[in-house]
Amino acid sequence: MLFTPGSDGIYAEALKVHAEKKGKLGIRSKVPLRTRKDLSRAYTPGVTQVCREIAKNRDLAYRYTLKSNTIAIVSDGSAVLGLGNIGGYAAIPVMEGKAILFKEFAGVDAFPICFENYETDFTDQVRNIAPVFGGINLEDIAAPKCFEVEEALQDIGIPVMHDDQHGTAVVVLAALLNACRVTNRKFTDLNIVINGAGAAGLAITRLLKCIGYNPDVCTMVKEIIVCDTQGTIYRGREGLYQNKYKFIIAEETNHTGLKGTLADALKGADVFIGVSGPNLVTPEMIRTMAKDPIVFAMANPTPEIMPDLAKQAGAAVVGTGRSDFPNQINNVLGFPGIFRGALDARATRITDEMKLAAAHAIADYVPRPRHDRILPYILDKGVTKAVAKAVAEAAVRCGCSRNLE
Amino acid sequence: MLFTPGSDGIYAEALKVHAEKKGKLGIRSKVPLRTRKDLSRAYTPGVTQVCREIAKNRDLAYRYTLKSNTIAIVSDGSAVLGLGNIGGYAAIPVMEGKAILFKEFAGVDAFPICFENYETDFTDQVRNIAPVFGGINLEDIAAPKCFEVEEALQDIGIPVMHDDQHGTAVVVLAALLNACRVTNRKFTDLNIVINGAGAAGLAITRLLKCIGYNPDVCTMVKEIIVCDTQGTIYRGREGLYQNKYKFIIAEETNHTGLKGTLADALKGADVFIGVSGPNLVTPEMIRTMAKDPIVFAMANPTPEIMPDLAKQAGAAVVGTGRSDFPNQINNVLGFPGIFRGALDARATRITDEMKLAAAHAIADYVPRPRHDRILPYILDKGVTKAVAKAVAEAAVRCGCSRNLE
Repeated sequence: MLFTPGSDGIYAEALKVHAEKKGKLGIRSKVPLRTRKDLSRAYTPGVTQVCREIAKNRDLAYRYTLKSNTIAIVSDGSAVLGLGNIGGYAAIPVMEGKAILFKEFAGVDAFPICFENYETDFTDQVRNIAPVFGGINLEDIAAPKCFEVEEALQDIGIPVMHDDQHGTAVVVLAALLNACRVTNRKFTDLNIVINGAGAAGLAITRLLKCIGYNPDVCTMVKEIIVCDTQGTIYRGREGLYQNKYKFIIAEETNHTGLKGTLADALKGADVFIGVSGPNLVTPEMIRTMAKDPIVFAMANPTPEIMPDLAKQAGAAVVGTGRSDFPNQINNVLGFPGIFRGALDARATRITDEMKLAAAHAIADYVPRPRHDRILPYILDKGVTKAVAKAVAEAAVRCGCSRNLE
Repeated sequence: MLFTPGSDGIYAEALKVHAEKKGKLGIRSKVPLRTRKDLSRAYTPGVTQVCREIAKNRDLAYRYTLKSNTIAIVSDGSAVLGLGNIGGYAAIPVMEGKAILFKEFAGVDAFPICFENYETDFTDQVRNIAPVFGGINLEDIAAPKCFEVEEALQDIGIPVMHDDQHGTAVVVLAALLNACRVTNRKFTDLNIVINGAGAAGLAITRLLKCIGYNPDVCTMVKEIIVCDTQGTIYRGREGLYQNKYKFIIAEETNHTGLKGTLADALKGADVFIGVSGPNLVTPEMIRTMAKDPIVFAMANPTPEIMPDLAKQAGAAVVGTGRSDFPNQINNVLGFPGIFRGALDARATRITDEMKLAAAHAIADYVPRPRHDRILPYILDKGVTKAVAKAVAEAAVRCGCSRNLE
């Protein structure tokens, strides 16, 4: 019998844990507040001078306030886990969870900001709350809005990254680099099929095909075919112009213009990357892929194909999003270190070079990749340190570090 | 020589304390995150079920997330301390300081939200970020905007209070109740002069004259004359219609229509309440007041008149905002307990009755009021408990508690 993480057991335990402490995140004071003297330093009248200094030079917010170590985890709840558009309230537990992961893995103080779906512009919202934050992690926002919002916020002076896009793409790239090593493939020879054209699917495609990436730092795979619920995405497909991002994907992938189903696309492919739904891939489909195929079935909690079935059908390397199988492809390998590095460097943005540095740092953290070990153990906090270092160095290299101290 | 809290000493110390820890507020996790099991409970896949439950019933955000114990401290930096409109960045240290006071005094998790002065509507902004918060403490917002914003947010389902208005008014009322006891005055006989017609001055006036307050719960003083930089506010004064709130004040105070300076207003008054600027009141002015006058000179850091001068001129009770003199009139006696009580009762708003309950709880916390002890010691956390209890009980009485557990 398969272990089902979505069983009543873990769900009941999760509800219990959440109810016991009424959530997962708390605030703490970093300074003492026991005496009048303490108060006069941390609050009035002493704080007046701190305000005056920042009023003269806004940058001093990094020196004197929480800003230098604090990020917002911002969501409108429009695409939460596999649950769809459940809104700002139901999104809170995920954002709160992510916030404590940031603290635990990277020492980053993260606070959840969940928007109601009012009519105010999302981008303005984020911009307006920016003063206290040193970075913005966008989360669980539906495509294509997530692309538009992220693009619109790239110049606000602090790093803004949609983790479902880039965090996922970075960890997938890391996994793919090591999967190439263990199956003796060249990265640039890869033929890849991606199922799912939401935030993650499109972001992985863009990174692996260097679409919109700086060609000096990005290495491109040979071919990608992206499938959505209607099958392969190809140039000229009806209705494609309605989604600018799918339109671009159609221009830059599937060069033979293959029209067909996911099964059609998978024939002869080296790699399957699933960011879609449960049980969409059969053992028969795996058998039609190239020899020793790489299968990343990342749908949560039930993958596109269960690892044992994929293995039996000949998959050489299988990764999932789940902790109960080898090769867990989980964003926690990426986002804590990426933001830690960006904050450490006081980066003004998260560039292509920084993302790629993160991917390579994750891959290189595994000393001898094996079929069942292409990624580090997700609870190994050394990964975060390695990623942070690589990201901060990349920030300095690409001239977007403002760390003057 | 007078002790000056705004001296280089405390300012230098404040800058040092702020720089050492890079701000004052941090995030902590309330749940363990050491094992895969921990992760699966606090994050995926377990969290999925928590999201599903809240999606079905928004109210469960109080059971399963940080919401039940978390408030936002919201400012646009338009009226920070005595510094004026210094903006969202320079306001951070104050909001951060207030947040840690909430934690220290009341166990409330408060997080600072500082808006940029973009054009988006302030009220929408606050409404949009409401999901994760169980309450909103508005702070350091210029009048009359602060009144408009607070009014517009009264029906969003969580308590919203502008502390510079109501926190101050509550503590002043508490001080006044005990000052009446020690000078053998009847509250309803008081003739009061208030100098300063910003957020605090107008809010104190409204509370003491029951303007906009439920007459069943509010007790009114006999007369108030409010002065601003142009002198007394009286019915028909030129330009008054430009500020709706001053206009209302003119209708409800200064019944003899006295036109003149602060000095003119003070003649024969029982009480002076200053929320204005340094050294605006002279000993001569105190001498013209009624016998045994009550003087609350709350300008910070330099009061309207120094306590020793006021005493020499005959003042029976003198209070200031400062910790280095007796009778410190400080909001910290009010806001932590007010929000603690509101959160405990899961109040949907902070009503007149709750504010008045807070004021009486503060006054009654002093067992035997004396001339130099009309208020509790501000670091005595028992006050917060007493206030919280009184406020929560008042919330239940006025039917705005949604605490069903």
